[in-house]
Amino acid sequence: MPTPWTNRFAQRTKVIKSSVIRELLKLTQRPEVISFAGGLPAPELFPIERFKEACQRVLVEKAACALQYGTTEGYAPLREMIARNIARYGIVASADNVLITSGSQQALDLIGKLLINPGDRVLVEAPTYLGALQAFDVYGAEYVSVPIDDDGLQTELLEEALRSGPKFMYILPNFQNPGGVTLAEGRRHQLVLLAETYGIPIIEDDPYGQLRYEGEHLPPLIVVDRENLRRDDGYRLGNVIYLSTFSKTLAPGLRLGWIVAPSEVIAKLVQLKQGADLHTSTFTQVVAYEVARDGFLDEHVRKIRQVYRERRDAMLAALQEFFPPEVTWAHPAGGLFLWVTLPKDIECKALFADALRQNVAFVPGDSFYATGDAGGRHMRLNFSNAPPEQIREGIRRLSIAVQCRMKRPEMIAL
Amino acid sequence: MPTPWTNRFAQRTKVIKSSVIRELLKLTQRPEVISFAGGLPAPELFPIERFKEACQRVLVEKAACALQYGTTEGYAPLREMIARNIARYGIVASADNVLITSGSQQALDLIGKLLINPGDRVLVEAPTYLGALQAFDVYGAEYVSVPIDDDGLQTELLEEALRSGPKFMYILPNFQNPGGVTLAEGRRHQLVLLAETYGIPIIEDDPYGQLRYEGEHLPPLIVVDRENLRRDDGYRLGNVIYLSTFSKTLAPGLRLGWIVAPSEVIAKLVQLKQGADLHTSTFTQVVAYEVARDGFLDEHVRKIRQVYRERRDAMLAALQEFFPPEVTWAHPAGGLFLWVTLPKDIECKALFADALRQNVAFVPGDSFYATGDAGGRHMRLNFSNAPPEQIREGIRRLSIAVQCRMKRPEMIAL
Repeated sequence: MPTPWTNRFAQRTKVIKSSVIRELLKLTQRPEVISFAGGLPAPELFPIERFKEACQRVLVEKAACALQYGTTEGYAPLREMIARNIARYGIVASADNVLITSGSQQALDLIGKLLINPGDRVLVEAPTYLGALQAFDVYGAEYVSVPIDDDGLQTELLEEALRSGPKFMYILPNFQNPGGVTLAEGRRHQLVLLAETYGIPIIEDDPYGQLRYEGEHLPPLIVVDRENLRRDDGYRLGNVIYLSTFSKTLAPGLRLGWIVAPSEVIAKLVQLKQGADLHTSTFTQVVAYEVARDGFLDEHVRKIRQVYRERRDAMLAALQEFFPPEVTWAHPAGGLFLWVTLPKDIECKALFADALRQNVAFVPGDSFYATGDAGGRHMRLNFSNAPPEQIREGIRRLSIAVQCRMKRPEMIAL
Repeated sequence: MPTPWTNRFAQRTKVIKSSVIRELLKLTQRPEVISFAGGLPAPELFPIERFKEACQRVLVEKAACALQYGTTEGYAPLREMIARNIARYGIVASADNVLITSGSQQALDLIGKLLINPGDRVLVEAPTYLGALQAFDVYGAEYVSVPIDDDGLQTELLEEALRSGPKFMYILPNFQNPGGVTLAEGRRHQLVLLAETYGIPIIEDDPYGQLRYEGEHLPPLIVVDRENLRRDDGYRLGNVIYLSTFSKTLAPGLRLGWIVAPSEVIAKLVQLKQGADLHTSTFTQVVAYEVARDGFLDEHVRKIRQVYRERRDAMLAALQEFFPPEVTWAHPAGGLFLWVTLPKDIECKALFADALRQNVAFVPGDSFYATGDAGGRHMRLNFSNAPPEQIREGIRRLSIAVQCRMKRPEMIAL
């Protein structure tokens, strides 16, 4: 029951859009539900033994540091390790270019805080990561959307969108969330060139880049940007800010992400982060460093890739087996998500309710569109959080719901 | 060297005030410096053995939960424990009224995000916690200040300030940072009554409340508010939002704070927190719960109180021993800080430079004032982070710097 007092707060607070997906996800928590709705890593892959050793070592050798206040920039050995690791992908950065954030969600929040004034436009892919929209909305962002296809952002449609003067572009080039698609190499060059021509910076969000299950790694936009420009004037990092995270490779419960940017930009983000949470937990940073060090992270990521590849293949096979030919889907070369397109006559929100009755869950596509309503026919399926046999059963259940909606009741016996 | 690309980002970013104190603190990192500048707990009191046991237990019994994504509200057993613990101080709240934040600094950021539109006034104490000013500045806050004296906020000056229509009041009632003073019980009632009369909510920040070294615990504003009103209409929490933290009782490196508020306000803060960092580290939350449970936290806080009381007394004794009679200071009944007032002719910034040459550091008072320049004659001294003999030596060094500034070179031999 609202009281005069809580109304007083309510009168004084800003209007906040409610998160539909948050409410939906609550419905998927029943144990009998096979949920493809979240974006959760497989908990059975968490390197628990390594965490145990790391915690003991940290508490014996580094407790006074790990439990104390730390610098806003982050734990220096961790920042140095990140700088070394990303060098393999051609990203030239020192620890001074790395800011540790409380998950890459905080990176999005800090970037919104730094760059967005009310009414500023942000250029996003359609569809795009809804957490980014949540982070940017608070600062009064407006959006201009450019659609993706199987090769990622449709760069041939980009120039017109850039003419509307966005403040920056927010791009997920690898195994995009939710689309699952990867930006083709030629398009990476076009994107970076257009960004340079129009003077619009790029925020490159790359949480899944290491989780590639087939094909060759493609150069990050931050590297394309640098190589395209080939300047000799001390320039090291230019028109692209790069974000990544340990959430998909070590454990999301640590809430550890990072921003790679020119040191002048890092300095501003540090000031904002200081006001936002002083610094990210020293304890999780030191523990993550001890877990990841000496090549363990690479070895562990190889294991994750193998397991997730099997799960992706299980989902693709089950879709092929159970789904009617009118339903199509993208083939993700990595990441956690598969994007399914339904026939025109299926309303995805209604399908969601049907699916829950079959004890299976997904995220309806419309949550992922900043503008327009193109998402009504799509669903996002996560394949990292269930073993292959459960994935097959979930897709079977989902196919029943889909075929009911397609008004083919005769096929429900499937 | 700035480059065209970083300039591009710079052109697009908002203007951010640089943090003077941040730059100052860097100067105090030399090992030969005795620093009274930070607000750091004593690392030798961190309950390391208990942390070791807790980490092992968490990784054996709860790893799949502790390393996975969690709910934005926070780890339910921790929220329940906090609700139980604060009941001892008369705060009537359930877990639904508790939101776990990434340190109480994040609580300040979320409250700024929720309540402050550019140009809104916030009523603060003069002096006040500078981290709150940093958090609120970003949202375009203006300030109205009310001075404190030895009994805390001067409530007889409050009414006039409230007539200027602040959006909310930000108050530190216990062992205020930086002033060290505690709001007297009579003034608590006046404050709550005026808040009610003028319809202005109170943010009550209480990081140090448990660290009382003498005298009786005084009722939190959130309790005074509730008792004053004595309503029977289902009202549980009203015109006050209460903030606290584990940073001063368990370990700041965990970055764990919390907000107690009406559930409707919590619901809005949860949405903002979701966009800000999804949730606070599940790992640190579960570990903190395992460390604190079964009465350990209470027992540990008793130990901290004893050690910090000795350190406070050592600092008071050293000030008495070494400082000239023109210098005065508040007597803090708890917390971490001692506030020193210098004679009129001493400029505290210049004194800071002198002190550093004597290898001792403090924070000049002017950083803590939202409006005006009343801080030039004050210095904040922290007494929690050094043992008594080091405190005595640091105060001795500081007295040399002070007496030089007071142009009594004949006393330098002290």
